[in-house]
Amino acid sequence: MSRSIDLAVIPGDGIGQEVVAQGLKVLNAVLPQDVKLETKEYDLGAQRWHRTGDTLPDAELEALKNHDAILLGAIGDPSVPSGVLERGLLLKLRFAFDHFINLRPSKLFPNTATPLAGRPDIDFVVVREGTEGPYTGNGGSLRTGTPAEVATEVSVNTAYGVERVVRDAFERAAARPRKKLTLVHKNNVLVYAGHLWKNTFDKVAAEYPQVSTDYLHVDAATIFFVTQPERFDVIVTDNLFGDILTDLAAAVTGGIGLAASGNINPTGAFPSMFEPVHGSAPDIAGQGKADPTATVLSVALLLRHLGYEAEAVRIEDAVSADLAERDGAATRTTDEIGDALAVRV
Amino acid sequence: MSRSIDLAVIPGDGIGQEVVAQGLKVLNAVLPQDVKLETKEYDLGAQRWHRTGDTLPDAELEALKNHDAILLGAIGDPSVPSGVLERGLLLKLRFAFDHFINLRPSKLFPNTATPLAGRPDIDFVVVREGTEGPYTGNGGSLRTGTPAEVATEVSVNTAYGVERVVRDAFERAAARPRKKLTLVHKNNVLVYAGHLWKNTFDKVAAEYPQVSTDYLHVDAATIFFVTQPERFDVIVTDNLFGDILTDLAAAVTGGIGLAASGNINPTGAFPSMFEPVHGSAPDIAGQGKADPTATVLSVALLLRHLGYEAEAVRIEDAVSADLAERDGAATRTTDEIGDALAVRV
Ligand SMILES: CC(C)[C@H](C(=O)O)[C@@H](O)C(=O)O
Ligand SMILES: CC(C)[C@H](C(=O)O)[C@@H](O)C(=O)O
Repeated sequence: MSRSIDLAVIPGDGIGQEVVAQGLKVLNAVLPQDVKLETKEYDLGAQRWHRTGDTLPDAELEALKNHDAILLGAIGDPSVPSGVLERGLLLKLRFAFDHFINLRPSKLFPNTATPLAGRPDIDFVVVREGTEGPYTGNGGSLRTGTPAEVATEVSVNTAYGVERVVRDAFERAAARPRKKLTLVHKNNVLVYAGHLWKNTFDKVAAEYPQVSTDYLHVDAATIFFVTQPERFDVIVTDNLFGDILTDLAAAVTGGIGLAASGNINPTGAFPSMFEPVHGSAPDIAGQGKADPTATVLSVALLLRHLGYEAEAVRIEDAVSADLAERDGAATRTTDEIGDALAVRV
Repeated sequence: MSRSIDLAVIPGDGIGQEVVAQGLKVLNAVLPQDVKLETKEYDLGAQRWHRTGDTLPDAELEALKNHDAILLGAIGDPSVPSGVLERGLLLKLRFAFDHFINLRPSKLFPNTATPLAGRPDIDFVVVREGTEGPYTGNGGSLRTGTPAEVATEVSVNTAYGVERVVRDAFERAAARPRKKLTLVHKNNVLVYAGHLWKNTFDKVAAEYPQVSTDYLHVDAATIFFVTQPERFDVIVTDNLFGDILTDLAAAVTGGIGLAASGNINPTGAFPSMFEPVHGSAPDIAGQGKADPTATVLSVALLLRHLGYEAEAVRIEDAVSADLAERDGAATRTTDEIGDALAVRV
């Protein structure tokens, strides 16, 4: 294992700056003395776009390639037309660096508010495909803005793309105590993509007899997310369904203030990128109100990815302990939460 | 208003037969003496397909056109490959009869179990587009079954199709006390379809200054469904997002045993079709365990559509009263629930 980490940091928009600062604080606190951490900040996001019109120039994309990993805060601002930064920056990174595993763990921590009655025991991980589906940018609009407009969106799914994420999900399921994998799709309507997913899933399943499997349509899956979330262990699903399900998962496990994610390229060909699931929350930006926990947990995923398993666990334990002692009534600032976690690790 | 109803009945598969029988029982009980009800049953679904290979032959499609409305139970069986009956029968009807309004009300009735803590006050209606989006069957598979397979699904959205459903939703919102309409889409990623939806929405909104509007991405919408469902009044959304959101809505309002729907063609050019949101539930079929309430509430939507508003309200009130007095502990059979509702109306 290399004893240095060369990290690219993209704070981005809104609360991005604040939460990333806390993520770095905890990262610095948890790393052993002998690990040299280098960080380089990239000025990308809404302000940059307003100033220069750039979302992600080629030179910066090239430079980003040379880091060991990327920590990203949040992207998006109401002053920028919807889609410009999402497609021109965030998704461009996920696609350019072939982040085919979008890893999103969901866990209901002790002492955390959930909108669900009866506090089910939730601990699952969604393996969301990250480079295909309706996210490919295929599609277009004909006769735009006229009463005869036709707008299309094309979901592209390849055996290559589906098999690699399904295999990854089986590996993750096999490594967990419950060893259960659920495929979520909508193969009764989206029959072409759905059958490719289902057939690939069934084929790979034969190689993992120790993993129990099931299949749910995405609509039915949302029902179980609120009525029986404890039934899930690992879920593998397409890019769009994964987007929807992981926001719902975050909501039932105490909110997107706690939801971490990793955009991972397991081959190591490109740097993986870690980011909280939440957005830039411009309404509370700069006020010290943002909960940096999701970013701190994303740093744990980053460390695990780079081989620092013990340090990742220390962060996760610190978050558990912090939440367990968190007093529901007291509101702490972004900085105070970061400090508390840095002290614990 | 015509004082006769010529109803096509498609019981379909699994619990379809049982719940439709209760729907008809309540329909018979609620209708004034002078309204002549004629019903004709169509044998369509899994058994028919196994026997003849037919899903919906042209002759039956033609015959169905001549009815005033259609009552459908449920379609689907594990013995039939996924997609065959959904696409060949259910969606074929929705598309052939141009059911562009898929109306799905969600209400948390008194004394009904919800998985949400704190029992929020839920009363909204989803206006789901029914004839476009990723449901059009456009798409295909190249090199099927090989490692080089590419499978696509095309979401088709037209100004024509989007505007008519958006207008309908504004009309419905304007007629409700809170007068609030939320557009749900994912226009930061699905930019072509998303911008068509958003631009159409904004254009029509200008004609309804009395309706307050907002926009949510579909992922964020799922969060509010569980954390703040009381914020919604009317929601308008695309076919696939509507499918997902209405199952989630059913779950938070006490389960799909209570979720009704109408596949409506408001022009009257073709018969509209009413069905519970739930599926055929083959695991409990034939055991008298199915809750027919969703079908009975679908009959109320049917009556409203045909102009029998007073009768529709009587059914809805009967369901409210029945649920209010329902004893959580006692399990009633499908038939008993139907009887109780028939007596009340
Ligand atoms: C911002 C948006 C493009 C993004 C997505 O849809 O993937 C976000 O919702 C997420 O889940 O990371
Ligand atoms: C059975 C299936 C084709 C259908 C749909 O996806 O529309 C169902 O889920 C529904 O919501 O009515």
